[in-house]
Amino acid sequence: MSRLTKAMRATAIEVQAALDTYIPRSKASDRRLFEAMRYSTLAGGKRLRPFLVLNSAALFSVPADWAMPSAAAIEMVHTYSLVHDDLPAMDDDDFRRGKLTCHKQFDEATAILAGDSLLTLAFEIISAPSGHPEAEVRAELVQALAAAAGGLGMVGGQVMDLAAETSDSALDLEAVTRLQAGKTGALFRFSCAAGAILAQRSGAEREALRAYSDHIGLAFQIADDLLDVEGSEADMGKAVGKDADAGKATFVDLLGLEGARARATQLADEAVAVLEPFGNKADLLRDVAHFIIERRN
Amino acid sequence: MSRLTKAMRATAIEVQAALDTYIPRSKASDRRLFEAMRYSTLAGGKRLRPFLVLNSAALFSVPADWAMPSAAAIEMVHTYSLVHDDLPAMDDDDFRRGKLTCHKQFDEATAILAGDSLLTLAFEIISAPSGHPEAEVRAELVQALAAAAGGLGMVGGQVMDLAAETSDSALDLEAVTRLQAGKTGALFRFSCAAGAILAQRSGAEREALRAYSDHIGLAFQIADDLLDVEGSEADMGKAVGKDADAGKATFVDLLGLEGARARATQLADEAVAVLEPFGNKADLLRDVAHFIIERRN
Repeated sequence: MSRLTKAMRATAIEVQAALDTYIPRSKASDRRLFEAMRYSTLAGGKRLRPFLVLNSAALFSVPADWAMPSAAAIEMVHTYSLVHDDLPAMDDDDFRRGKLTCHKQFDEATAILAGDSLLTLAFEIISAPSGHPEAEVRAELVQALAAAAGGLGMVGGQVMDLAAETSDSALDLEAVTRLQAGKTGALFRFSCAAGAILAQRSGAEREALRAYSDHIGLAFQIADDLLDVEGSEADMGKAVGKDADAGKATFVDLLGLEGARARATQLADEAVAVLEPFGNKADLLRDVAHFIIERRN
Repeated sequence: MSRLTKAMRATAIEVQAALDTYIPRSKASDRRLFEAMRYSTLAGGKRLRPFLVLNSAALFSVPADWAMPSAAAIEMVHTYSLVHDDLPAMDDDDFRRGKLTCHKQFDEATAILAGDSLLTLAFEIISAPSGHPEAEVRAELVQALAAAAGGLGMVGGQVMDLAAETSDSALDLEAVTRLQAGKTGALFRFSCAAGAILAQRSGAEREALRAYSDHIGLAFQIADDLLDVEGSEADMGKAVGKDADAGKATFVDLLGLEGARARATQLADEAVAVLEPFGNKADLLRDVAHFIIERRN
């Protein structure tokens, strides 16, 4: 098992335990809501975004106790976005991570409300005094998470994606890049910025993390498009070939298979390069950059 | 025009201007999202929750500039909840405030995302350094808003409401009271707590505001049930008689028309009484308690 795989598995177990603690257990009156929140959030997954939070924080020796709320919060926001994106009115998906999507397992109303509640809980967790001791830091985390998740970040990207589906003209490379910078890039950006915010660092170190997250965010999406063409449904735990079927412009369409692979590799290399100032403390983050373009799901 | 009507109109104009500033204007790429957010948020309404924020803050002479972010944020959360509640998977309503609901004017996907984005923007606004100068206060506002809006607050109440609709057994008075304490009460609770949080007051003053908000929150819901029976569609700007048709247990069912009127009056009187420590600085909040049970829409 590689160093990265080992670290990611260990982190995933810790994050799972944190999420389990943060999401209330069902009470009789609203059992269905918390069951749905737990069903979707505790379903597993690579916990890549929490891994980035915890390892960007580790660059500055931030205690894990201070970083875990942000790690759990970003996973909740990621999960809420998947729950809402899977809805019939949006991507209309039946499976996610090899299980029924939230609205198939429960119902549409519950899925909408479970997503709403996860998003709200994320903000509750990162602003709680039990997390970082400095209120200034907690308020800045809220600012950064809201900017990443909102209409000028992730939701904005999703809107562009839906608009592109119904449009007659295909998006060009610049437009697809901008779309993905919102839809998937914004949460990567928060995950890496969180480390610097928690450590109250700005300047060059924060800029380096910003560049790193932009590079891996884009590489992640190009790899996703490659997996949608090349991956197997069994590995992915969800339908593949859907983007091509839906006529979405992907990086594979725009760059070709070889071109897309080359661009992803180049981005991973650039991501590794910008971590130079952190020395070998950033080795796991370097491994992540390679992992992102080599993963099978 | 009464003192309260005059004050509420003036506040509504200020809140409208603040909301107009806070919600980004459309850009080409995601025009539909911001149009939908603006359509639903700027549609008017009494701005009762912002009024409570601004007037609970005024009890402690908190500058309006510090309080306006919370006033705008609570209206965004209220609006997001209406946009999501109106969806076909939930209450399936076509009209709201005399206009087409968000998903009828735009489409379901846009309505879901516009709600998501309004909720996110609310947290961005109350945590922004341009609001209250103390980070401690901004972080506490985030905590309070998340608790009010989330699965143990407003969303929890909505889940109980949906569960009651599909259940065979009718809710009793205790259950309906608990449901409404979440569904409508929680945002009133934040609105009044905001004044004390912004002024960094705790203890008896905060407790008094808490009791006031609980009383008017419940009175508001009883009055709503009475309007659903007695009100006209023209006054309400939405369908009436829906709750009875849907077989929902209302306070009118449980207490009778006269009993519900008497209980609402009693709650308004209690709300007025608990404001005693604030003297005549609380006159507008006293007026609100009466207004809530006398309103026509």
